[in-house]
Amino acid sequence: MKTVNVDLGDRSYPIYIGDVLLSDAELIRKHITSSQVLVVTNETIAPLYLDKFTAHLKELNFDTVILPDGEYTKSLESLNLVITHLMEKKYNRTCVLIALGGGVIGDLTGFAAACYQRGVKFIQIPTTLLAQVDSSVGGKTAVNHPLGKNMIGAFHQPTVVFADTSILSSLPDRELSAGLAEVIKYGLIRDKEFFDWLEENINNLKNRDNEALSYAIERSCINKAEVVAEDERESGLRAILNLGHTFGHAIETALSYKEWLHGEAIACGMLMAADLSVRLGMLESINVERIRTLLKQINLPVQVHPDVKLDEMLKNMKVDKKSREGVLYLILLDEIGKAVITSDYTEEALTETINHYLS
Amino acid sequence: MKTVNVDLGDRSYPIYIGDVLLSDAELIRKHITSSQVLVVTNETIAPLYLDKFTAHLKELNFDTVILPDGEYTKSLESLNLVITHLMEKKYNRTCVLIALGGGVIGDLTGFAAACYQRGVKFIQIPTTLLAQVDSSVGGKTAVNHPLGKNMIGAFHQPTVVFADTSILSSLPDRELSAGLAEVIKYGLIRDKEFFDWLEENINNLKNRDNEALSYAIERSCINKAEVVAEDERESGLRAILNLGHTFGHAIETALSYKEWLHGEAIACGMLMAADLSVRLGMLESINVERIRTLLKQINLPVQVHPDVKLDEMLKNMKVDKKSREGVLYLILLDEIGKAVITSDYTEEALTETINHYLS
Repeated sequence: MKTVNVDLGDRSYPIYIGDVLLSDAELIRKHITSSQVLVVTNETIAPLYLDKFTAHLKELNFDTVILPDGEYTKSLESLNLVITHLMEKKYNRTCVLIALGGGVIGDLTGFAAACYQRGVKFIQIPTTLLAQVDSSVGGKTAVNHPLGKNMIGAFHQPTVVFADTSILSSLPDRELSAGLAEVIKYGLIRDKEFFDWLEENINNLKNRDNEALSYAIERSCINKAEVVAEDERESGLRAILNLGHTFGHAIETALSYKEWLHGEAIACGMLMAADLSVRLGMLESINVERIRTLLKQINLPVQVHPDVKLDEMLKNMKVDKKSREGVLYLILLDEIGKAVITSDYTEEALTETINHYLS
Repeated sequence: MKTVNVDLGDRSYPIYIGDVLLSDAELIRKHITSSQVLVVTNETIAPLYLDKFTAHLKELNFDTVILPDGEYTKSLESLNLVITHLMEKKYNRTCVLIALGGGVIGDLTGFAAACYQRGVKFIQIPTTLLAQVDSSVGGKTAVNHPLGKNMIGAFHQPTVVFADTSILSSLPDRELSAGLAEVIKYGLIRDKEFFDWLEENINNLKNRDNEALSYAIERSCINKAEVVAEDERESGLRAILNLGHTFGHAIETALSYKEWLHGEAIACGMLMAADLSVRLGMLESINVERIRTLLKQINLPVQVHPDVKLDEMLKNMKVDKKSREGVLYLILLDEIGKAVITSDYTEEALTETINHYLS
């Protein structure tokens, strides 16, 4: 078992990474300090892992909420449903919420924990690779608004995260690759050595080698934890974690969040950010090929979905959360392992990049 | 003009207190650092003060949301309405929300600011005495759930508060007295000298003497600010601000939040807390009479509303937020000017107190 500590003063917490965590009753019980426990999960995960997990909670006063699987569960309505459950069962301020699921369940449950009585504890048990390396680190919680994703939320840190790699055995191939897109991101933005390791080990990861997955999750969490520790509320540095996200969100919005998984859009977006970096003379062009090769090996898209048009891309990028007083800041690459936040690019170069990647 | 600084590190902010603040264009504009401004107010306040205030915003890109007046406005539905407005107008992370109204508008707008894109700035212009001395200090924001008040919320500090005493001229007598109940509370919990001053000046306050009101608001805000600075997230000390609130909330719940104003319920609740303190041998009985006399002078209730029964009171008190693992902590008085948080009381004494105050 590996442990990564997220260092945030009195909001610090450990991330445990290993392949038998969900069976480790002692470890789990050690971290549940309340007798009022609500487990929030979804209809896909519940039949696979809920009984296995709640077997450790038998002598506690626990309840479960099982929500539909899918992005539309991340709504104010679901928030209200979770809060209503807590109210009806008279949960007090010392209760703990446990998110057993992917990013949707984690973000929703985390936001419910942030809001309920102005903040109660929560524990994350991420069940996708994406959630293990991304949404479980850093305390970003949110639900969606019909006009935009993650628009209603809070920063609220979990008290502990259990990232069990054995759960990944039930993950569909596409979702594994989508998670690996975010893993690759950490190499690109601040860890060249890790990027080199990923190039060498991409087939082991694709084949779900437990050792390789554990190492990739650990290294991703360490990178994210370091960035978050420096800038918990995203006033500066933390924005580098959004490499590829402005392009990616624009694609997702144009596709109404259908067709592509988040990680797939981010993969394509990172490639576009690298391409724009080359056009601006920041990055050597050979690096775009290295990224493209890596993405293709795990079947991630290296071109924008054919349904997306240039105008849509540009319009969607402009309403991004990273837009400040009308100026759109982008995360670009100076080299592999070094991201920068900049508004120093031309509309022309941006348009060329988008056009180049439109199908 | 008086200024009270709320000292919370990088979340510190000033409270300005005076009688011409709403006409002070320079002061107001100095504190609005964004060009995207949303003013949230209600149907009672809008015709009286909205134009006067927005006259200072002419060259900015500002919008207004006018909500119905009343406690039921403090809901997830209203939150969604405010957020939808922000989304439709493409407000970004640098925007500022301005709450022009009483506690309901302040709590709702503050929570919307806490959640929108995980946190944007907000400014409070409290228009009731209660909001000026209570909800505008300390950053507690929330909406209600059908099963309980303030159950969905966040700690989110404003960037500045403008407490204009001239606005209080349009406040109904009952609301003025309800606000004074919270003013008296600060004397009771930690400021004996202020309580003595209140006894001497209660008629000036009742007659809305500007000087007296300004002093009472300033002293209340200083007291609250000191408590909040020591315990921003209510892990301990801050709970003394809830003197009378467990009794008061139980009365409000029994009355379905009709009949009595919040401050009226708190007034009666403080008297009951004092009575229980006497029964437990903590407080000298003469002090209960002092409190009763003061409350009666401004027509605040000194007996529980006749519709409320003992069983209801006890049941409602048990589900209070201050209940921890089944133990109900109460705020009691050792002397005037000294509150304590304790679970060291008997059910018998509690029942005697409630019975004594039932009509």
